[in-house]
Amino acid sequence: EIVAAVERAFGGGPLAGRRVLVTSGPTHEPIDPVRYIANRSSGAQGTAIARALADLGAEVVFVTGPAEVSPPPGVEVVAVETAEEMRAAVHDALPVDGAVFAAAVADWRVANASGSKMKKTAGALPELELTQNPDILAEIAGLGSDRPALVVGFAAETDDVVANATAKRRRKGCDWLLANDVSPATGIMGGTENRITFITEDGAEDWPREGKDAVARRLAGMMAEALA
Amino acid sequence: EIVAAVERAFGGGPLAGRRVLVTSGPTHEPIDPVRYIANRSSGAQGTAIARALADLGAEVVFVTGPAEVSPPPGVEVVAVETAEEMRAAVHDALPVDGAVFAAAVADWRVANASGSKMKKTAGALPELELTQNPDILAEIAGLGSDRPALVVGFAAETDDVVANATAKRRRKGCDWLLANDVSPATGIMGGTENRITFITEDGAEDWPREGKDAVARRLAGMMAEALA
Repeated sequence: EIVAAVERAFGGGPLAGRRVLVTSGPTHEPIDPVRYIANRSSGAQGTAIARALADLGAEVVFVTGPAEVSPPPGVEVVAVETAEEMRAAVHDALPVDGAVFAAAVADWRVANASGSKMKKTAGALPELELTQNPDILAEIAGLGSDRPALVVGFAAETDDVVANATAKRRRKGCDWLLANDVSPATGIMGGTENRITFITEDGAEDWPREGKDAVARRLAGMMAEALA
Repeated sequence: EIVAAVERAFGGGPLAGRRVLVTSGPTHEPIDPVRYIANRSSGAQGTAIARALADLGAEVVFVTGPAEVSPPPGVEVVAVETAEEMRAAVHDALPVDGAVFAAAVADWRVANASGSKMKKTAGALPELELTQNPDILAEIAGLGSDRPALVVGFAAETDDVVANATAKRRRKGCDWLLANDVSPATGIMGGTENRITFITEDGAEDWPREGKDAVARRLAGMMAEALA
């Protein structure tokens, strides 16, 4: 940690001169001014990745939803709440050399969100109309001239991890996909560890179950090699 | 604060020997194992009330949803997540002399919540069926022999505060109702101050806009008089 801080202070490290983007945390999708749809992402994995990349000398833009974990020091923080805001912040951050999409972006938002607090009226139940949120990972992976050289996605799977994640990587068009098994039995979601299945066009590789910091350092090291 | 702590240590204070219940925070209503519906209650007002009551010597049972603010010291904490869990915890806490319902309980929960993570399938949108949550305040205020001697509710109003809150107090059957104006322009929701309209069967009284701690001490003092 001290070596990394010294290297960073002197502008060293294998990612010196590289600009990378990391998204992290959940998004909150409003129902009305006081209610919203959320998800259980703590932001721990994305925060660890941003820290590990900064430790290797990268200039990090950290686009984060409302996470429990505080952003790491030494990165440019862009705080957002909704998927639409995250998408805009990501486009604003371009161009970057590498991009890691670790945020748990809500798949859906409420199309008929109310500008004033919905009242509880006896017997009446509000109908929430959901609509698809933008797929930020697929959008950035599919860019032409502005596409980052290395695009990394995450996939939270609950079953058939390798098959589902392999198909997802192809569908999204990203270079690497880090799939984790979030079925409740694993205790991964909201926990301190991760067990990653690492998917590239060459196939799938199981990483050991390890702390989120260790996963982050492993990924950051591989990114440094790929962007060298 | 020191005087209060000393008095408490020696079992003194005007609420010594009184048992009171305070609910606080938002509730989270699951959509599936990773998604949920939440609201912007921070738990600050309920936490301040629990602290103020404990400072006056009360034995406090603090039933709290997933709040941002930590519970105060010296109270019995019961942590819950959903409205149904909060209702059960409140019934378990009875009998009490006084009860303050400061939690922002979700009005609705998802009737068709999924036991496994819902998949994003191209073109398909989930339909969330909402159903009414139990009205814990009205339920406790309407109890027979187990009804606390003093039942205090909160109402977050956005317009016509006195009329709406006066009707609400009658409908809920509580003794006192603390109404606050949460329309976005006031900055009350999630802020550090409150402006209370205090409703009893005798009418409505405007309290000054003041910090949530001051509101809490004012209410606790009045409760001590009422329960003397």
